[in-house]
Amino acid sequence: MWQLHQFPLCPFSRKVRLVMGEKTIAYELVRALPWERSEELARLNHAGRTPVLADPGRGIALADSRAICEYLEETVERSPLLSGSSAQRAEIRRLVALFDEGLYTDVTGPLLQEKMMKRVVTRQPPDSRALREAMRAAHEHLDYLDWLIDTRQWLAGPMLSLADLAAAAQLSVADYLGGIDWSGHEQTQGWYAVFKSRPSFRPLLQEKMEGIHPPSHYALVDA
Amino acid sequence: MWQLHQFPLCPFSRKVRLVMGEKTIAYELVRALPWERSEELARLNHAGRTPVLADPGRGIALADSRAICEYLEETVERSPLLSGSSAQRAEIRRLVALFDEGLYTDVTGPLLQEKMMKRVVTRQPPDSRALREAMRAAHEHLDYLDWLIDTRQWLAGPMLSLADLAAAAQLSVADYLGGIDWSGHEQTQGWYAVFKSRPSFRPLLQEKMEGIHPPSHYALVDA
Repeated sequence: MWQLHQFPLCPFSRKVRLVMGEKTIAYELVRALPWERSEELARLNHAGRTPVLADPGRGIALADSRAICEYLEETVERSPLLSGSSAQRAEIRRLVALFDEGLYTDVTGPLLQEKMMKRVVTRQPPDSRALREAMRAAHEHLDYLDWLIDTRQWLAGPMLSLADLAAAAQLSVADYLGGIDWSGHEQTQGWYAVFKSRPSFRPLLQEKMEGIHPPSHYALVDA
Repeated sequence: MWQLHQFPLCPFSRKVRLVMGEKTIAYELVRALPWERSEELARLNHAGRTPVLADPGRGIALADSRAICEYLEETVERSPLLSGSSAQRAEIRRLVALFDEGLYTDVTGPLLQEKMMKRVVTRQPPDSRALREAMRAAHEHLDYLDWLIDTRQWLAGPMLSLADLAAAAQLSVADYLGGIDWSGHEQTQGWYAVFKSRPSFRPLLQEKMEGIHPPSHYALVDA
């Protein structure tokens, strides 16, 4: 059985979990906190990051969330998430990179630093300027998502794809940490509400990171 | 004809150029400097980054270097760079991510900031502490590359792959900027010397970024 090494607020692990949920691939969770620099995580992934998807019985350990998602797409045909022509697949991958890198660097990463790392690891108060900057950047990213949803059925085109899962993974962590102000972003809010009701997403919304409480709307499907 | 929007010291554009060189795909260069925030680059790539691979005649514009490399691999069969089983392909992609993210964040990115951006854009002296830190991090990355080369024929396994091209692209920019001390890294130095003599690499080594001069060994194939 697959084991996913992750922690509840890792957006890249959430993306892999959404892929496995959509493809109905069974797995169990193994808790891994990258900041504790465990020998096991370093052995499984030289980069020392989550997620790692391992199958000890078969001696497989896959690292890097995009490499894992491509592997799952290649090996499990059902519910394709990278379908279409090569140009359409390039568009899906462009958006995945935009969300994994841009949305993470500008929004999810700073929120995790200020509201999780400082609370759980370094025991410092959050920097309110960094939080304001992350929320301002979130509005810009939501503007672009609104535009995508205005012009397409799903983020990358006519089909649900890895791009939707990558965006939802980042936004769900940012929303958990109170960093998303949905006002003025009805398009993205509507897309996200549909997403929250999917069977692949429901289990994620029920999980908590100890010591950090999400806002009341976080797990509500119609909010 | 393909047009690659790039600048000479962009490591991600170099990776795409190496792929196109290995696959002997014709293209012309279009100079794009992301820090000038041109409207054309923003129109071609919402993230405002290089590289962009465009074919105006066919109305195609591909962005994000990994998405571009996957597209070229899917559409041009010769000289495969992502071959093998799904597990082997996952290993290639894991290493590409490690070099694109880890090696860039720790080494190439800081060197570009201190030795290119500060000289060409902001006209400031480089921060010697940041340079020392990047060179220290380079040694750690070279240690890992040495280990890979000790245990495998090429970085990801028995065949030349996108992982080798991604590492060579980052290292070539770091070497241009005088940030690589090869002493004690004979394995990686030997692998890199072989690489420098490949027809895909030779044109890159002849190019200069105005105002920034590489060390004398940079373009020598046997150094």
